[in-house]
This record gives sequence, C-alpha cells and structure tokens, in this order.
Amino acid sequence: MDLNGKTRLSDSVARNITSLIIGGQYKQGAKIPNETELSEKLNVSRSTIREAVKTLASQNVLEIRRGCGTFVCDNPGIAEDPLGFRFINDKVKLAFDLLEIRLVLEPHIAQKAAERAVDEEIKQISAQCAEVEKLILSGSRYEEEDVLFHIKIAQAAKNVVIPNLIPVINSTIFILMEITNTALREETILTHRAIAKAIENHDGEAARNAMIEHIMHNQRFVEKLKGS
Amino acid sequence: MDLNGKTRLSDSVARNITSLIIGGQYKQGAKIPNETELSEKLNVSRSTIREAVKTLASQNVLEIRRGCGTFVCDNPGIAEDPLGFRFINDKVKLAFDLLEIRLVLEPHIAQKAAERAVDEEIKQISAQCAEVEKLILSGSRYEEEDVLFHIKIAQAAKNVVIPNLIPVINSTIFILMEITNTALREETILTHRAIAKAIENHDGEAARNAMIEHIMHNQRFVEKLKGS
Repeated sequence: MDLNGKTRLSDSVARNITSLIIGGQYKQGAKIPNETELSEKLNVSRSTIREAVKTLASQNVLEIRRGCGTFVCDNPGIAEDPLGFRFINDKVKLAFDLLEIRLVLEPHIAQKAAERAVDEEIKQISAQCAEVEKLILSGSRYEEEDVLFHIKIAQAAKNVVIPNLIPVINSTIFILMEITNTALREETILTHRAIAKAIENHDGEAARNAMIEHIMHNQRFVEKLKGS
Repeated sequence: MDLNGKTRLSDSVARNITSLIIGGQYKQGAKIPNETELSEKLNVSRSTIREAVKTLASQNVLEIRRGCGTFVCDNPGIAEDPLGFRFINDKVKLAFDLLEIRLVLEPHIAQKAAERAVDEEIKQISAQCAEVEKLILSGSRYEEEDVLFHIKIAQAAKNVVIPNLIPVINSTIFILMEITNTALREETILTHRAIAKAIENHDGEAARNAMIEHIMHNQRFVEKLKGS
C-alpha cells in the first residue's frame, strides 16, 4: 500500500516535471535543477524526485549524466524502438517496408524543404552534407550524421512530426545495411549532394527526384538481402 | 548495490520474456504463465518476475489484468505517445502536420491494399467499414473502430510497419477533431464506403483517390481550427 502510494506520487511528480518541460521552463537539451532544489520546488521528498527522474529517464525525457547532472533530452519522449519493431521477426522484410515508407514520405519532404527552406537552413543542410561526405571519405561510420542530414531536411520542410519520425525509420534500416559497401558510399555522396543542391536552388521537383533516386538505391541493397 | 543488482536481473528477465514473445512461444494477445510458473521456468525469484512483468507492462509489451492474469499486448511494444507528441506545444499545427503525413502515406497504402488484398481481407475491410457506419448512425463515438478500419487497409497492403504507425498518427488527430460534427460524420461514411468499394474491386487508382478525398476532408476541418 505504502509502496503503491509512493509510486503514484512519483508518477504525478514525473507528470509535473514533464509539464515544466512542455511549458518551456526547462528547455530541451538543458540541465534541470538538482534533487534538493527540485524537492523544495515541488514540495516532495528527494527519494520521490529520484523515482520520478528515473521514470522520466526510462521514457527518454531526461538523461542522467553521472557526475554532471540531469538534462532534458534533445528530442524528449521518443522511446527506444517506439513502434515495437523488435517484435517483427523478419528483419529484411522490416527494412524493405521501412524503405517503402521512406520512398513515399521523403521525396515529398525534400520537395517541401526546397520550397520552404530559409538561408540558414540551406547552410545547415549543405554543411551536414559535407560532414557525412567527410566521414565516408575517411572510412568512418556515418549513420548518425546521415540521419541528421535527413532530419535537417525535414526541419526545413516545417512539418513538426517528421523530425521525430525520421530517426525511428532510419536507424532501424541502418542495422541491416552494409554501409561499409564502397558502391553504397559513393552513391550516398552523389545523391546527398544532388538533394542538397536542389534544396539550395529551391527546386522542388529536382529535390523530389534526387530523394527518390537516393532511396531507390538503398532499396536495391536491401532487395539483394531479400534474395540471399 | 543490492538494489542495482536486482534491477539488472529483472531487466535481463524482461529481455528473456521479450525473446519468448518474439520467438512465438507467447502469442500476441495470449495469456502468459503466472508468476510461480515463470519463476520456475526462468529460475529466478517471484519478486524478480514481478519486477520484470511491471517493466514490460510499462513498455506496453504485457498487460496485467487484475484477477485475470497477464497477457501479451495485441501490438506489443508501442509506447503511449511513442513519438513524444506531448512535447509539441502547438496542437493544431501538430494535427495539421500529422494529416500532411497521412495525405502522403495513406493514398499509397490504399492503392497497395487494392492491388494486394485477398478475399478474406476484403471481407474484413467491408465489415469494419459497416461497423464504423453503425456507430456513426447511432450517434456513438467511433474513433477506435475508425483507426481499425485504416489498420485493416494497411494490413492488406502487406507493409509490416504501417499498422504500427497508423494508430500513433491517427489517435493524436482525433484528440483535436470534433468528431461529433454531423457533416464530418456523413463525409466519413461516404468516403470510407468509396475506399472499401475500390479495394473490393482491386481498383488501385480509385482507392488512392478515395483516400485522398477522405483525408483532404479531415484536413479542411483542422484548417478551420487553425483559423480560429
């Protein structure tokens, strides 16, 4: 009974902290007050605060950095594997179907980005394109920066949902793809460049087509896995 | 230290149970063995099992039904608000952008469903269409059955991701929509019927167009909210 009461209290405190984040009092990526300060502010015990922070950390709302403090996540509230992909057994089919969704969504997003991007966004997209290229040419892994390239395009398209959706879709695909493959690396450089260039020129149709080419190319790689 | 050790053990037991579900030993929607049986099977204490089950319940993998037992969820692993929509402040913009995504995705899905649906799926889609209609005509809330109509279409399209994605996108839109609005109800009946009919006729283009009409209509409703 006591334990249940405590759990419920910490859940309600977790909701309070969430409201403070949504209300903008604690910004995304910023450090939040320590346990003692929060316990005074919200008028509950430190152990209740600790429990609430743990709950929010498990929901990817907060990040506890040892010896450093507790921070609001950059994209708060996106669970690990939020759409339950681990319960889909056929991973090749999963990757193929994720690419089918990307092939429907992202050309549209690229087109909107070309139509709506402001100068600062164009600069960021080009810089991110160069960053991915640098990693590829140095033989490093580039998945994270690649996803960021697609996120920056989605942000320029001004749809608030897509930047949250892209990492979920893309990270799962990367698990399956042999990104060390030389051919894929070269094609990625060329098609990324074409996408960035089209957005810079505010050419919606060219951006759409370059994105189609980019995703089709990825699809061909997964297609090979299907056959194997 | 002891507490940490225990937490880690229950996490590893939670992963074991997850593997049993993925492996098909415990089916989606089915009841799993009770605490005592699981504790014997996995060779850990009942309190560790209880902890693991609680973790999996918080991840929407298991559902604890009081006095009834513990069950695997129908769509395991899809968290509540998995994409962190609660952190997007402008809910009208959110609904509008979700509809933008639906307008890109779902016509494609409807077309694929028309091309790929087998007889049993067509029967289910028609039955679900009739079910939504019955609720609308009796003046009841119909959101859940409406989402299920779209899920059944997605299933017929044979993409394993879309059925997991549709509820996330649609449930959030419903929060904003005034589904008691008579005009919306009538249009929903007509456009749902057109979609179901086109799938039944394996007419991909008609299914695509009917879905566009359906979503455009919803979009007009949210557009009004934007203005207000």
